[in-house]
Amino acid sequence: MKGLAVCGKGEYAVVERPIPEIVFPTDAIVKMTKTTICGTDLHIIHGQITTVPPGRILGHEGVGIITQVGPAVKTFKPGDKVIVTGIIPCGTCAFCKRGTYGHCTTGGWVIGNSLDGTHGEYVRVPYADTGLNKVSDKVDDVGSVMIADVLPTALECGVLSGRVKPGSTVAIVGAGPVGLGVVLTAHLYSPMKIIVIDTDENRLRLATQMGATHVLVSGPDTTKAVMELTDGAGVDTAVEAVGLPAAFDMCQQIIGVGGTIANIGIHGSTVALDMGRLWNKNITLTTRLVDTVTIPMLVKLVEAGKIDARPLVTHTYKFADIVEAYSAFDAAAKNKVLKVIIEFD
Amino acid sequence: MKGLAVCGKGEYAVVERPIPEIVFPTDAIVKMTKTTICGTDLHIIHGQITTVPPGRILGHEGVGIITQVGPAVKTFKPGDKVIVTGIIPCGTCAFCKRGTYGHCTTGGWVIGNSLDGTHGEYVRVPYADTGLNKVSDKVDDVGSVMIADVLPTALECGVLSGRVKPGSTVAIVGAGPVGLGVVLTAHLYSPMKIIVIDTDENRLRLATQMGATHVLVSGPDTTKAVMELTDGAGVDTAVEAVGLPAAFDMCQQIIGVGGTIANIGIHGSTVALDMGRLWNKNITLTTRLVDTVTIPMLVKLVEAGKIDARPLVTHTYKFADIVEAYSAFDAAAKNKVLKVIIEFD
Repeated sequence: MKGLAVCGKGEYAVVERPIPEIVFPTDAIVKMTKTTICGTDLHIIHGQITTVPPGRILGHEGVGIITQVGPAVKTFKPGDKVIVTGIIPCGTCAFCKRGTYGHCTTGGWVIGNSLDGTHGEYVRVPYADTGLNKVSDKVDDVGSVMIADVLPTALECGVLSGRVKPGSTVAIVGAGPVGLGVVLTAHLYSPMKIIVIDTDENRLRLATQMGATHVLVSGPDTTKAVMELTDGAGVDTAVEAVGLPAAFDMCQQIIGVGGTIANIGIHGSTVALDMGRLWNKNITLTTRLVDTVTIPMLVKLVEAGKIDARPLVTHTYKFADIVEAYSAFDAAAKNKVLKVIIEFD
Repeated sequence: MKGLAVCGKGEYAVVERPIPEIVFPTDAIVKMTKTTICGTDLHIIHGQITTVPPGRILGHEGVGIITQVGPAVKTFKPGDKVIVTGIIPCGTCAFCKRGTYGHCTTGGWVIGNSLDGTHGEYVRVPYADTGLNKVSDKVDDVGSVMIADVLPTALECGVLSGRVKPGSTVAIVGAGPVGLGVVLTAHLYSPMKIIVIDTDENRLRLATQMGATHVLVSGPDTTKAVMELTDGAGVDTAVEAVGLPAAFDMCQQIIGVGGTIANIGIHGSTVALDMGRLWNKNITLTTRLVDTVTIPMLVKLVEAGKIDARPLVTHTYKFADIVEAYSAFDAAAKNKVLKVIIEFD
């Protein structure tokens, strides 16, 4: 089979590999149907996540069909359509028992990290019973791919950590795929205002289509504009969906008394926490790795037509063109790319 | 009457003033019995809280006897023994209705800030019905003074914001009066381990007396020691009760996955938030002004003998010696001072 592997810093290529086989009795083998590229895959290629060894097939999102299961797998069989996500919980460690799958002591983020990922034609998934998510034919393959990572990251790290509540005001700094996913999933909790801030008017148009009540092109007057939209109070929830100091600082400027700053963006270094401003404001700040614990709920919502993240997909490539897809995604803003879909044969 | 007023940066003196009178129908006049000095009073004198004008009588903690009430006061009468705290809620604004008294739009922290405080022989308290707390003779005056600010700050900003839970592990960085108050009030939520970290062995001895299960003299091996005490996991709650970058950073070093850093210390400037370390650790960080909303509960607990903060008091002065008391408290660590009590005639 073929797969897209990181080869060294800044280098990636399609490599030839044997089709993976069952190693542990709880494994399943999935033949991939569709996948997508995540910003994290780019971080790996650019050498910012140094734990991933050269030669690793990347990718941690996708949908496929099970071809083989180990003898201990109880709830899946060959032919099942499944969502493959990066976070694979063992289901039995202390972290899994409290739903913190991302920190599973023997699983966690393994697909496309410590194990080969979804940018290969086949992928071996450990702990298949707890790690895979069945999806019915009511959800098409593109919808399934969006459930693998974008939607649970937006919901868990943004909406739930940000404690979005009925009647509340939410600001989302950064209208990339995850930020737009926050727009979609915030609606589940009935906030009154969803304000999206970005530099790209194209992305802001999409934010409005997806349910943002207000969009702001970020600039020197952004804080003032948010204050006017909130009667001077600031927002109840500010979601940092960029991973840059300016975006983090924007959240600190616009958060209201008693508010929550939910950080999703990956900063990779220290940021300046403005205690002079925030010390007495009853602020909560959260960080979080996605646990993908909300995937079963998201499957039901997407099946029922309550959430549709497919408009996030701007480009589709054949797997044969995956190198070109990486290149386009790496210059995403320039190429007006949000999410790309990669179709296997 | 006499009162201790800030006179300018670094300057304070006893001044002569008329006894305050009822201004609004909801006011009460309290003749002070005992008061104490807070680190915040020192911040004012040193010019770090610039909103307080020269001439202001300081102090926002104490106990006294009501001498006069306005015609609209329903629940208090002359002769009632009351705890006077800095935070005075109107009871009717949006912040008060959600219990965020510290952010009351017309009250909040007024005593010893925008109004004269408890370091005068008499004090005018606005919104007396919502702002004062009755206390029975089961609580002596020193116990009452500890309920005015130290205990609610420790409980609300440390224990509750830090989400201390049964069986959890708590680390308290800083064994000053508020840090030790966190030791006392954390026990209400039955944590398994309470680890107190400070540079002062004298304070750590008191921490042990007050219920700390482990104490650590802070040094280069402190993080390692905390990790050993928590089987390598880090703590569930880390309380920053100092207000210095090193203490904040210690909290970031020792916090475990899914943990909460409750910041109480007043930093006055930015601190470095280590997103490289914390981004994926499911961390919650909180800031908060005390609301004093837990005072009625604390009064009941102290009346019942469940909490005793009186060991925090290391020195007692007559009101005539209040200038000396300030001077001693300003060099607190050097003089082995924790809380001072000032007795009025």
